[in-house]
Amino acid sequence: MTKQNWLDELKWDDQGLIPAIAQDEKNSKVVMFAWMNRESLAMSVDSGRAVYWSRSRAKIWPKGEESGHVQKIKSLRVDCDKDVVLMSIEQIGGIACHTGRESCFYFELTDGTNLADGSDDQKQWQAVEPVIKNPDEIYKK
Amino acid sequence: MTKQNWLDELKWDDQGLIPAIAQDEKNSKVVMFAWMNRESLAMSVDSGRAVYWSRSRAKIWPKGEESGHVQKIKSLRVDCDKDVVLMSIEQIGGIACHTGRESCFYFELTDGTNLADGSDDQKQWQAVEPVIKNPDEIYKK
Repeated sequence: MTKQNWLDELKWDDQGLIPAIAQDEKNSKVVMFAWMNRESLAMSVDSGRAVYWSRSRAKIWPKGEESGHVQKIKSLRVDCDKDVVLMSIEQIGGIACHTGRESCFYFELTDGTNLADGSDDQKQWQAVEPVIKNPDEIYKK
Repeated sequence: MTKQNWLDELKWDDQGLIPAIAQDEKNSKVVMFAWMNRESLAMSVDSGRAVYWSRSRAKIWPKGEESGHVQKIKSLRVDCDKDVVLMSIEQIGGIACHTGRESCFYFELTDGTNLADGSDDQKQWQAVEPVIKNPDEIYKK
């Protein structure tokens, strides 16, 4: 493995992964959270496109390979502990989520009142972002 | 433990934790990433202030308990998989990071050229956000 100081400086977890947050450069929405391993982060920087590590499929996951919803990386940051990645991205197609929504963060905790006031049985996760495109159309073969 | 459907619906990892992202409602900056367990998320919602789980200290961590840099929660979301929390917060003191910066995400990958063009030995993490307050002043006893 070639020497890559910028990768060596990061703190990878015990599975060799680092959390990665994708933020839309256009409107600053946080659109996605996923994981990267060393190889996928190197691929991301080399290609200028977000490449994640899919934990469920245990494989490299170039974002948008099926959907076309590629994330072009505009800038890349890490935090003070160098154990979390934050990407500013251009979201191709305007859809980051596999549900066809702009952002994966579409469930908001609500209880019809101020959050801290409502009782627990009133609290629920409510989908508050519209589906832009039917997933069946995004992932059709 | 009382029944709390909204908490039961979340997917906690094998250590009972969930990643939590704090985003400043004022300027949409992602200022912090940390972890929560069930108890700290319940405390966050009850109090309206971010309470994390400190993995290094293995204890409940009410953000700002020493520094005063409390994060007031304005809204709370989870993602499509219900395994990541995103908070829109008001950052008291305008400083989220223990280094005295507005945001923990202050290291930017740079190589003086387009990121995908530079060679690996030119790439480096550069601190691009100013220290607003000396940490010695923030954490003085």
